Amino acid sequence: MTAESHRPARRGLMLILSSPSGAGKTTLTRNLKSENNLDLSISVTTRTRRPSEIDGVHYRFIDRGTFDAMRQHNDLLEWAEVHGNGYGTPRKEVEASLAAGRDVLFDIDWQGTQQIVKKARADVVTIFILPPSMAELRSRLVRRAEDAPDVIAKRLANARDEIARWSQYDYVIINDDLDAAYDAIKAILTAERLKRSRAVGLGDFVDQLLAEELA
Amino acid sequence: MTAESHRPARRGLMLILSSPSGAGKTTLTRNLKSENNLDLSISVTTRTRRPSEIDGVHYRFIDRGTFDAMRQHNDLLEWAEVHGNGYGTPRKEVEASLAAGRDVLFDIDWQGTQQIVKKARADVVTIFILPPSMAELRSRLVRRAEDAPDVIAKRLANARDEIARWSQYDYVIINDDLDAAYDAIKAILTAERLKRSRAVGLGDFVDQLLAEELA
Repeated sequence: MTAESHRPARRGLMLILSSPSGAGKTTLTRNLKSENNLDLSISVTTRTRRPSEIDGVHYRFIDRGTFDAMRQHNDLLEWAEVHGNGYGTPRKEVEASLAAGRDVLFDIDWQGTQQIVKKARADVVTIFILPPSMAELRSRLVRRAEDAPDVIAKRLANARDEIARWSQYDYVIINDDLDAAYDAIKAILTAERLKRSRAVGLGDFVDQLLAEELA
Repeated sequence: MTAESHRPARRGLMLILSSPSGAGKTTLTRNLKSENNLDLSISVTTRTRRPSEIDGVHYRFIDRGTFDAMRQHNDLLEWAEVHGNGYGTPRKEVEASLAAGRDVLFDIDWQGTQQIVKKARADVVTIFILPPSMAELRSRLVRRAEDAPDVIAKRLANARDEIARWSQYDYVIINDDLDAAYDAIKAILTAERLKRSRAVGLGDFVDQLLAEELA
């Protein structure tokens, strides 16, 4: 018998990770999803797919007309325009997961985070991942060997804008060790799943406990 | 370099565990303290020491006059009368730990918890530990072989009163497996230590990060 077997029903939660690119978020997100019984929200975007990206895995790549229609039909839980490209989170999949009591993982920026927090504060947990230093962030972007020097310079400028939003988040993790950062996120997820306010089935469990007749 | 090495200064927190006796709290408390860099708050009590108890470890056993004087001098962070005996938490040690940025673990009942939450909501994390069933709770009390049958009956009645307070707690853990319950408490502690609102040194860390000049 494990603790899980007695775990009463609870509301699903939305776990949002934000960070500047190069801070390790993508690796952390992939590992988290596969090991922690999470549904990953795949964003839509109008920007061009990079060679390393897979449609439906990293993003769903859609055209501008489709994006605008989704916005107009309120099919996006959050959306933003960044450097002329549209980014957004499809609402339907997220709502289906939550309704089934499952948790959803988001890899989105501060703008999207703000919108989701405004809509569903009680069901949202937000984590910001900081690099240990800007020098380390840059060397990770260089090691990744994916971008030209001018793109890296732009990413570093964007990183400063993103980092400046750290104080809007519930938790902040400094990622100077990927395993430690992963363990920290797992602990946050475990803890948030144990919050009394999310355990909608706990009242019934305790009522049963108190009503138990001992022979 | 570990995440801890970059961890900015943070305020100490008060981690309160409550549960009916027999739910495993004492074992969990001892293990937590030794492995997680926590200071344990030792309560004072006017009740008689049991043969299995050690003064200064399980409680500090004091006489009624000393207890009343502590109360009158505001030396107790919380106190309660239970079955004619006084119980309380000495304030000085707790405040010294918190001021040093250390966390303090409390093993107290719902009355004490309420008092501490009222005084310091932002610095308190409360966990309630439930038994998986009343039958299991009773069999643990019987296995412990410490109490006479009438004392066990009284403990079970008290357990129902304590359990009825579950909904005042931040987190609820159903302890049907001691290792799983221990891991759950550790995860809560890890998560709460990562809360942005406690990381008083994080603003300075980010300022330094943003000011960093890249060669």
